[in-house]
Amino acid sequence: MQKYKCTISYDGTLFSGYQVQPNKRTIQSEIEKALGKMHKGQEIKITASGRTDAGVHAKGQVFHFQSPLAIPLPNWEKGLNAMLPDDISVLDIEQAASDFHARFDAVGKEYRYFLSRAEKRDPFSRNYAYYYPFPLNYDVIREAAQLFIGTHDFTSFCSAKTEVVDKIRTIREIEFYEEDDKLIFKFVGNGFLYNMVRIIMGTLLEAGSGKKSPAEMRDILDKKDRGAAGKTAPGHGLYLWKVHY
Amino acid sequence: MQKYKCTISYDGTLFSGYQVQPNKRTIQSEIEKALGKMHKGQEIKITASGRTDAGVHAKGQVFHFQSPLAIPLPNWEKGLNAMLPDDISVLDIEQAASDFHARFDAVGKEYRYFLSRAEKRDPFSRNYAYYYPFPLNYDVIREAAQLFIGTHDFTSFCSAKTEVVDKIRTIREIEFYEEDDKLIFKFVGNGFLYNMVRIIMGTLLEAGSGKKSPAEMRDILDKKDRGAAGKTAPGHGLYLWKVHY
Repeated sequence: MQKYKCTISYDGTLFSGYQVQPNKRTIQSEIEKALGKMHKGQEIKITASGRTDAGVHAKGQVFHFQSPLAIPLPNWEKGLNAMLPDDISVLDIEQAASDFHARFDAVGKEYRYFLSRAEKRDPFSRNYAYYYPFPLNYDVIREAAQLFIGTHDFTSFCSAKTEVVDKIRTIREIEFYEEDDKLIFKFVGNGFLYNMVRIIMGTLLEAGSGKKSPAEMRDILDKKDRGAAGKTAPGHGLYLWKVHY
Repeated sequence: MQKYKCTISYDGTLFSGYQVQPNKRTIQSEIEKALGKMHKGQEIKITASGRTDAGVHAKGQVFHFQSPLAIPLPNWEKGLNAMLPDDISVLDIEQAASDFHARFDAVGKEYRYFLSRAEKRDPFSRNYAYYYPFPLNYDVIREAAQLFIGTHDFTSFCSAKTEVVDKIRTIREIEFYEEDDKLIFKFVGNGFLYNMVRIIMGTLLEAGSGKKSPAEMRDILDKKDRGAAGKTAPGHGLYLWKVHY
């Protein structure tokens, strides 16, 4: 058996998220179906760096799997891409050490969140950016964002459904930049809790629109209460950009 | 009754083209449905600059309609956008002269055709650009494109189903430029026959990949036979960009 590390991109629009669910079209199930075909029906399970929710996209999701097949790497990529639907694409596949684990070995992740700031609603970005044409004070957002940098208990910034006990995470970077009519936020950290990027994003929008002051960010962190933070920004603006190993 | 000129953008992916067809989701039927709602059920017919096929997009389609309602222009735009599905967006609406006609008054049109030249298949452009990663000689394409400029009989470059008798059209410009991993072709002319841009595009690709010589373009025009030209490039790479009045 050889272990492989595979990097993929997907358009999350038509998926019920990453993880296998009965009778739902998910990224994991489509990939396992494609691998099953390549293995003449043998079931091949994959393990990703983490899940993504319905509508959430990926530019660099990573998973690992094991296979008894002896196929040269370029053929792996071609073969898998030929079997996959056109909203998932294999970007890279490489041999991995037998103890490599896509989730446990990840030392950091980068997400990006796309806002559409177009004056007119743009049909082409409806599934790829959150349309937010309202006034925003970028200086205030920048100030608020800085208060998340570092190591904090992010209980207030994760879904109440989060099952993990340890809610301490380190955020290394939150930056944003303009590209055409998009405002793109970059989040880099050692790991993110369930819905964490989307709740921070929603809270930054409340700061930028004057509903919360930047200083409140610290109070919200201290409260350790999901109810204290802002709304969860929609999934379709979010991209899992890169997994660091 | 007041006549209005309306400019819209749409993502053609989920439409069976522009024109009303029974039991199909079309751009015209969605707009007429939205206008019907604004007129409390009264049927309002629209007339566009021309049809677009299934999967074809628009950045600046234009239509006209008449209405008995006295609504200020900004409210027309807001009202219509609120009633329309999110894959159609009103960009502009203005009052028009009572004899304005979106189709007959058009003096020219601009289309653009998007090729994806990405090394890896990109899930995000699968509906918005024709994935063509194969080698292309850009100089040869430029040479071939020049032979279409001017006034010609385009019988060889329109669908055999074309019903109009006069197949003489004038192409003013065919240019292309690179943007990220896209190669974007711009076609400007006084009017285009059914499938004409897509057939010229398909034929330019055959020139660029060495299957046809640039000089053959003139022979194909002379033959007045659809069978002499190249394949019809897929609809999802095509955008009706602008209508000139």
